[in-house]
This record gives sequence, structure tokens and C-alpha cells, in this order.
Amino acid sequence: MRVKMRPVNRPLIALTSDFGLEDPYVGIMKGVILGIRPDVCLIDLTHGVPPQDVVAGTLALESARPYFPENSIHVAVVDPGVGGSRDAVVVFTDRDVFVAPDNGLLSFLSEGEIREIRAIRNASLLRHPVSRTFHGRDVFAPVAAHLARGIAPGDIGPPRSEIVRLPLPRAVVTREEVNGEILTFDRFGNAITSIRGTEVPEGFSAVRAGGVQWPVASTYEDVSRGEPLALVGSFGRIELSVRNGNARESLGLCSGIAVSIRAD
Amino acid sequence: MRVKMRPVNRPLIALTSDFGLEDPYVGIMKGVILGIRPDVCLIDLTHGVPPQDVVAGTLALESARPYFPENSIHVAVVDPGVGGSRDAVVVFTDRDVFVAPDNGLLSFLSEGEIREIRAIRNASLLRHPVSRTFHGRDVFAPVAAHLARGIAPGDIGPPRSEIVRLPLPRAVVTREEVNGEILTFDRFGNAITSIRGTEVPEGFSAVRAGGVQWPVASTYEDVSRGEPLALVGSFGRIELSVRNGNARESLGLCSGIAVSIRAD
Amino acid sequence: MRVKMRPVNRPLIALTSDFGLEDPYVGIMKGVILGIRPDVCLIDLTHGVPPQDVVAGTLALESARPYFPENSIHVAVVDPGVGGSRDAVVVFTDRDVFVAPDNGLLSFLSEGEIREIRAIRNASLLRHPVSRTFHGRDVFAPVAAHLARGIAPGDIGPPRSEIVRLPLPRAVVTREEVNGEILTFDRFGNAITSIRGTEVPEGFSAVRAGGVQWPVASTYEDVSRGEPLALVGSFGRIELSVRNGNARESLGLCSGIAVSIRAD
Repeated sequence: MRVKMRPVNRPLIALTSDFGLEDPYVGIMKGVILGIRPDVCLIDLTHGVPPQDVVAGTLALESARPYFPENSIHVAVVDPGVGGSRDAVVVFTDRDVFVAPDNGLLSFLSEGEIREIRAIRNASLLRHPVSRTFHGRDVFAPVAAHLARGIAPGDIGPPRSEIVRLPLPRAVVTREEVNGEILTFDRFGNAITSIRGTEVPEGFSAVRAGGVQWPVASTYEDVSRGEPLALVGSFGRIELSVRNGNARESLGLCSGIAVSIRAD
Repeated sequence: MRVKMRPVNRPLIALTSDFGLEDPYVGIMKGVILGIRPDVCLIDLTHGVPPQDVVAGTLALESARPYFPENSIHVAVVDPGVGGSRDAVVVFTDRDVFVAPDNGLLSFLSEGEIREIRAIRNASLLRHPVSRTFHGRDVFAPVAAHLARGIAPGDIGPPRSEIVRLPLPRAVVTREEVNGEILTFDRFGNAITSIRGTEVPEGFSAVRAGGVQWPVASTYEDVSRGEPLALVGSFGRIELSVRNGNARESLGLCSGIAVSIRAD
Repeated sequence: MRVKMRPVNRPLIALTSDFGLEDPYVGIMKGVILGIRPDVCLIDLTHGVPPQDVVAGTLALESARPYFPENSIHVAVVDPGVGGSRDAVVVFTDRDVFVAPDNGLLSFLSEGEIREIRAIRNASLLRHPVSRTFHGRDVFAPVAAHLARGIAPGDIGPPRSEIVRLPLPRAVVTREEVNGEILTFDRFGNAITSIRGTEVPEGFSAVRAGGVQWPVASTYEDVSRGEPLALVGSFGRIELSVRNGNARESLGLCSGIAVSIRAD
């Protein structure tokens, strides 16, 4: 027996930033949003993006976004150029909306999926006075809250034809080899690489990185405790792990290390 | 004058894990839940369980659970065997529900309070494809959300008669002495022990640990600033503290250190 | 086209503490609140106040509070004297309510804006047994939840005419010079000072701190990458920064360092 769900109109705003949780910055953004749209559902995607690391921010958004409901409004703030000449935008796709500085943070969005881009120009949507250092509070949070209230794209500002794009680290696939690199690590010390599982041809299972050969596995239990392994991880990417251990620490890995995969 | 409360049917899902908050894992689990049951109330119990430390996870759940409302749904993910042979379960008690890997994480539940155990087998409740590394997203989050929608135990999978249990560190009480150990520390450096206040006989007040005698107090102000003390702490357990200080750092304590209490 | 907002009566409780997020303390407070008022909106202002640092706590509240909606209920717990002789209070202002230990944590509230102070005395509002170490759970959380249910000030306890006040670091302004100090740092290594932008007379732009002259700027982009600058930051205070860098680390700053500003 299933309970019938009532239709729910409560909009969802997901927050991503490099603000951490030690300072009141994230709490303040939420206070501003709730002052405009009190019934919104606020979710932290993560605030652990390394400070000012726009590429890490776009990769976090790319990884997490498919798991959020349709019509989610994402506020993303990794913004080393705050207060300067970079623009601020709202990007609409067929399934969600992004409010962010136009500094490459939305590079993961493919051109094909973008339905509309608006520069944020309507001063009546902002918190005044607009500071030169905290647009999360004065620009991005209030614009997201007004989007949750139902403003139309035309209320935001003039259309833009494109967003700033940064080159993202992507795997290079040849007939002999797939070449990529370690992008980042998670809390468990797993190394997340630029190589997607779908990019690895059938039969390629000789993984090398950091001078080590990594046995390919489909799950951690395929190797013994403390042994290294390579597998397709939580985001569909090749990950380098140590079962019940920490690959980063025990093998001295770091971001940028080359990873190659070839046939045995 | 009190405002009458409307009856509220919004279910509460509390999340506990070793995921930390630096990565998007926790945010993704919430996105999945809200995609299934948008009006649920999501609360983080803690995501600071040390990585892969199932015993620490069960102790955190044991400590916090009594303070959550009846009918809370707890999703708990400390899961070093993810993707392997361990099972996944839903455990119903008279007051709450737990969704977790069957790896000992629910060891704190007494046999007497468990009303029903179900193995998670109904594939229609899961997110597909089910990864081999992130059952928090693909198994535990969606099952919790479906429970919040009101599915019956029989919709989950076949009944189980028991869950996996790990030996938890418990105090040993003799006529002369109560013996236990330091389990963990909180942010303030307080050492939380395996000895419950109720296990200490009247008149036992000579506490020894780490080569130090700890004066027994009923509150921090019973000793001077910077002085050590032992008291019954927030979870009803004997705790070792330093007033206005950090016992862990200033006395070089660590988990596993023996603690004994006897008559003066 | 704007969507009409329904009136929302859901009360907002904002939590501030030095509990961190590694332990279950914050989750437990939320569990207690939701057990009393299930439909409340719970927001973390921050739990990153340094342990037992009451002055840091009051500065965090002062910084963040203006950005929260009217009628917000703030629960603030930085409480080194928990279980001892300090009192517990509820303070009502014209725009919000604070529930806190009476230990100076609310020192940022000016006498003029306080409308009413009540000592917490009504035992029926508390969680029993009331521990001697965790009033966040047993006193402050339940009182806040009952406030969210609509109890009147008279239900809390007897009136008080004042709260405990700590001397807060404030700038000293003379005709020649404004003198202050570094109060704290944020995650980006920006040094937040005791000098408000409004306290700096026109034409004063020679900022000295830590043996360094800091060029005054209105935004980060006014200087080159890696260069130091002083500007009015997110909370209206003079901040010392390094563009695209970390002033704290690269210049070896620490709290308490003197900052002076004079005419060029």
C-alpha cells in the first residue's frame, strides 16, 4: 500500500560554494533567501570546494547535479573575481536553473542543454547596498529566491548567447591508450580521475598511475584489505582506491598525477 | 497563551554517515530523497563519523537517537563493504526506523526493541543503475524516501530474524571496581568513556585514567579553571574533562585508554 | 509575472554554536526542536565558533543577524559555564528573539534595541532530566521550540533588567588616527578588523598592520594577483586581504595584531 503524494510546489534551492562552514557566510545566504521566500527547501550540495578553485567547483556541480530533482535552482558561488569585471548570470536548462558568477563555474553545462542565459541586471532583485566582496549574499542568494517566487527570465536582465568556459581536464583516448589524470580526492582518500568508465574500451585493464599498477575491480571486495584497486566509482569515473584504506595517504598521490589505461 | 499546533504529517529523515561535508555525497543523498518525497524534513545527525569506523557510527546513533521524535527515519551509512556481500536492511522499532547496511552499524539496537527486520530486495525502490561504491545514493536514500511515502515493510523485501552485531565496548562492573575505556572525544577534547553513570555504584569516586586521578564533579564549575574532572556527561556516560580546557590535548589522552572507578 | 506568495507562518530558528559538526550535538538539538514544533524551519548560522570563545560568538551573531528575516528565533550556545551559576535568558528585540546563556554572548545587542529580557525559569519548558553539561539540548533547544509554538514572554520566567556584557574590541578614533585590531579570519585568510568602514574619516587611507602598508582598494581587482589590499569587507568592517591569496598565511597575521589608519 502506498500513500498518495500531494502535489508539492515548494521550490528547492541547492547551494554550492567554497565558503566552508566555519564562517557565517552560508548561514547568511540562507537568511537572505528565507526573507524573500520563506517556504523554500534549502539544501547544501557542498561548501567544501577548495577556496577560489573554480574548476573544482564546476566538477562538483557536474557530479552532483544529475541527482537533484527537476526544477532545482542551483546557487553556485566560487568567485575569486567578486566585485570586479566578471558578469553574473542565470542559466536555464531543460531540467534546472543555475545562478552563478560568469567565470567558468558553469563550464560543465553543454551548449546543447542550455535553453537561455540572462545577465543579472535588474537592481530591484538585489540586496542593497551591494557589497564588493559578498555577492553570494547580495546578488546570488536574492536572485535565486526571486526565481523561486516565479519571476520570468526577462525580469533578470538581458539575454546572453554564451557563458565563459574554462578548459576542463578530459581524458584523451587513442587506439592504444586512454590518458587522463587525478582530478581530486574524496574524504576516504579515493583518487577521482578525469577518465570516465564509458571512455575505457573493452579489454583495457592495465591501469598505471604514480608508478603503480592498479588491478581493475568491479567492487572493493574483489581485492584483499589494504590492496590497491581501480574501479568505476560513484560518478562514473575511474577511481583509484585502497580497500579499507586511504589511497591518497598510503601511496602519496596528488592531483595532476597522470593515469593511463591500456590493454593487458 | 499557547498557539494550538496543527497536526503535521511531514516525515523526518535523519542522516548519519562517515561522508564528511567536504564532498558532495551528503548533498546528493538529499537530492535523491527530495526527488521522491519533496516535503520531507531532512536533518543531519552527523557526518563526522571517522571513515569506515562502524563502531563509532553505532555509538553516535545510540547517543543521539533518543532525542529524535517518534517515527523518525534514520538513514545510516558507514559502509566499508559497499558493493560486496554484506546485506542492506530496514529495521523497525516501536519508535523509529533505521535504513542501513547490515554490517553491525545497528548493533546498539537491543533485540527486545526490534519489531521487524527486512532485507532490502525490491529493486523498484532503488536508483538505477545501482553503483558498486555509493549505496547511500542508490539504495539507502531512495528506500528511506519511499518509507517516508508510506510503503509497508512487506514492500521492502523478505523478513530477517536478526541483524549483524559487533561487540561494543561495555564497562565491566565488579564489587571492587568498574573498568572501562575511552571510546572517543568530542570537539572540546572531552573523553567519552564506555562507563555509564548508572553503572557506577554509590560511593565509587576514585577515577583513574592515563596515570591521572580525576576528581569526581557534578558540574565543570566544581573545579578551578584548567583542572581535570570526571563527571556524568551529555550522554549519561562518564566523561573526562578539563574545565575551560581540552583534556585530550593537555593530558595526551587517546581512545582505548583504560578507565577505572573504585571506592575512595 | 510574479507568483503570489501564500502567507507563511512557519517560524525560523537559526542555530549558532561552538559545537562543530563532527559530533552529534547539533543534530540532537534539531531532533529536540522538531519533537516540539515539527514544522519549524531550522537554519545553521554557524557552528564554527572557536570552542568556548564567547567574544567570537557574539561577533558572529552581530555580523549575521541583520540578514535574517524578522521574527527569527536565534538559539546561541557558546557556554563554557554550562551547569554552573550563569543564568539562561530569552531576549526579545523589535525584530528577533535570542535564546542563550547569559554570559556575554549577546553583548552585541544594544540596550536601546532590547524590548524585554526573561530569565528561563519555567521547568515545564525544559527537557528532563536537565543535564549539567548540555543545556543546548535540555534548555535552549526546547525553549526555542516553545517560542516557535507561540508562548508568551511571561511563560518563560521573571523579567530581567539587563544582560551580562563583555567588553567588545572596538576601534578608537582620534583626529589623527583610527586604531583597532585584527579580530578574526575567515576561510579565505581575510583578516577582519575591529574598525568599521563608517568609522574611517574621509581621506584616511594609510593602513598599517603587521609591519606592512596596505593599499586601500574598493574591490579585489584594484590590485594585482598576490598583492595585499585593505577594503571594506562583507560585514562593513575594514578587512586585510591578498588578492587571489590568503593574507593570514602569506603574511603571518594573527588575531590581536594592531591596525591603524591615518591620512596619507
